Amino acid sequence: MTLAVRYLAARTLDTAPAPSPAPGPGQVEIAPAYVGICGTDLHIFHGDMDARVAAPAVLGHEMSGRIVRVGAQVEGWSPGDAVTVMPLRWDGTCPACRAGHQHICAHLDFIGIDSPGAMQQRWTVPASALVRLPASLPLDLAALVEPTAVAVHDVGRARVQRGERAVVVGGGPVGVLIALVARAAGADVRMVEPSPHRRRRAEELGLAAWDPDTDDVPELVRRWTGDAGADVAFEVSGAPSGVDTAVEVLGVRGRLCLVAIHPRPREVNLHRFFWRELTLVGARLYGRADFERAVALVADGTVPAQRLISRIVPLAEAPLAFEALEDGGDVMKILVDCADDTQAAAV
Amino acid sequence: MTLAVRYLAARTLDTAPAPSPAPGPGQVEIAPAYVGICGTDLHIFHGDMDARVAAPAVLGHEMSGRIVRVGAQVEGWSPGDAVTVMPLRWDGTCPACRAGHQHICAHLDFIGIDSPGAMQQRWTVPASALVRLPASLPLDLAALVEPTAVAVHDVGRARVQRGERAVVVGGGPVGVLIALVARAAGADVRMVEPSPHRRRRAEELGLAAWDPDTDDVPELVRRWTGDAGADVAFEVSGAPSGVDTAVEVLGVRGRLCLVAIHPRPREVNLHRFFWRELTLVGARLYGRADFERAVALVADGTVPAQRLISRIVPLAEAPLAFEALEDGGDVMKILVDCADDTQAAAV
Repeated sequence: MTLAVRYLAARTLDTAPAPSPAPGPGQVEIAPAYVGICGTDLHIFHGDMDARVAAPAVLGHEMSGRIVRVGAQVEGWSPGDAVTVMPLRWDGTCPACRAGHQHICAHLDFIGIDSPGAMQQRWTVPASALVRLPASLPLDLAALVEPTAVAVHDVGRARVQRGERAVVVGGGPVGVLIALVARAAGADVRMVEPSPHRRRRAEELGLAAWDPDTDDVPELVRRWTGDAGADVAFEVSGAPSGVDTAVEVLGVRGRLCLVAIHPRPREVNLHRFFWRELTLVGARLYGRADFERAVALVADGTVPAQRLISRIVPLAEAPLAFEALEDGGDVMKILVDCADDTQAAAV
Repeated sequence: MTLAVRYLAARTLDTAPAPSPAPGPGQVEIAPAYVGICGTDLHIFHGDMDARVAAPAVLGHEMSGRIVRVGAQVEGWSPGDAVTVMPLRWDGTCPACRAGHQHICAHLDFIGIDSPGAMQQRWTVPASALVRLPASLPLDLAALVEPTAVAVHDVGRARVQRGERAVVVGGGPVGVLIALVARAAGADVRMVEPSPHRRRRAEELGLAAWDPDTDDVPELVRRWTGDAGADVAFEVSGAPSGVDTAVEVLGVRGRLCLVAIHPRPREVNLHRFFWRELTLVGARLYGRADFERAVALVADGTVPAQRLISRIVPLAEAPLAFEALEDGGDVMKILVDCADDTQAAAV
């Protein structure tokens, strides 16, 4: 019997044996190697998504692993192949799908939220969701491909060009990944992040980071850009003040890429959008091209995934890891090692 | 001595003799024929722009007229030429100008707000601001070129494509002009406007108009678009509910062009921007290409300017016309006939 980490109710996770039926037609069974814990997983843990998530639910959608079994009608994949998963299933018939925006399907199944996720020892997914990993890429680093794909999508939505100046508001894992991907696209990047731990992490990656609580960020941007203002800003903080900062730093015709989830309406300085002819662009998830680019960026070290991984915990310690992430502190990304059931044996 | 309409203080206009010095180098003197009263002029009349407008101030920037005198170093223009004016002067050196966005110059002089406008019998402007009018275009209709240029700019900022569905929220003169220009670009257009007068005016122009107070606009848009949502929305109302409507009607990857001035921050459903990957685009003023396109659209009747003109009043009655516009009612555009000083003679 294999083990799974399950969400039972607000602030309650357990590990429990889970069935592993043979993969059906078009499906593959994967042995997940490493699974990252993401902000969305924390929202689920807090009970904020109980209307959407049917407990008991297996979480996890940032993963790497190897194929174990291949179902009928699956071509091109074999047991042992190293893979990650683009965790989306769409209906293919809604207006968004017909327009080519499958990741915004009206009936999107986000695997790991709407259906069982990767935080288990055996996971069955459609073969169409597989993304191949190069043999040279260690599987722990490959667990960062999914959040990197988010960043690739965001930088693409913002149409970042070489030589542009970009401000990333929010220095969590996605903010740092956006900064790294924007830098790889040729932008000069500054981050804005109140946590000294996160600023230090960003600076270790060569990313200058300002403190919005003590730095006069708009004035620093004016000096940096010779009064022109930034070309691009990314709002990754989710805070009302983050929206204000992102709007304020932009110069004429600047683009604000909205990445963070703002569950409630926010006050926005629309006059500034009019006056400077700003653009606000919403960005959600990714497409396959974003995933493939993300694999390349992690594999070639442009995204130094090793330095974003704060800790790797055995499967059975995943519930404790969720609590550690809640406390914030000096943590970027925690990975769950699904093959390691040492603690589970002791329970 | 020639006459000018002057803003003296909140709710106080007069007509008074004004000097008409010979035009300097690079300048021309125009005899304005017709000058439209615009929403911005009303804001000034209300005293809302006293921080920017130095009284006594001659208002007016939607105009047509003929050149009377030409200053030194002016080439290509002669007395008698029919013209309108793109009422912008820029410094040419700020970051916006250097990037080619002169209409967002950091030190923009908007002629008619920041410097004397057209509501007078003689008006001196830089020759560089002139836009030639075809001889076939009656000068009363040509006074609609400036607001049409706004609409051309807005439709361009929204990148309206043939076959797209567009919703225009707000049915004042600029809203109607945007709808007409978007229709000319091949879009299928619906308007949203609470005033029955304005809905009737729109419908007389072949523009279907919904009443946000009694119609379920989002549901009507779903039926109209087969659940896809609109491709483009224009927020031209300036009302908080207008922003909400414009956001709500858009489908996946829809574009919201923000035309109205929202002096205060507004609550915006940013979650929808994220979820549907919407884009918000600010639009302000126009460039020369917009003006030249607007001349063509008015001249060929695509914009039926005659039907947008509610009334033409003599120069000396302009103060009363401002009060009539304030009352709202069944008024679209009022033009001031600058050559007609009949009432002035009686004062």
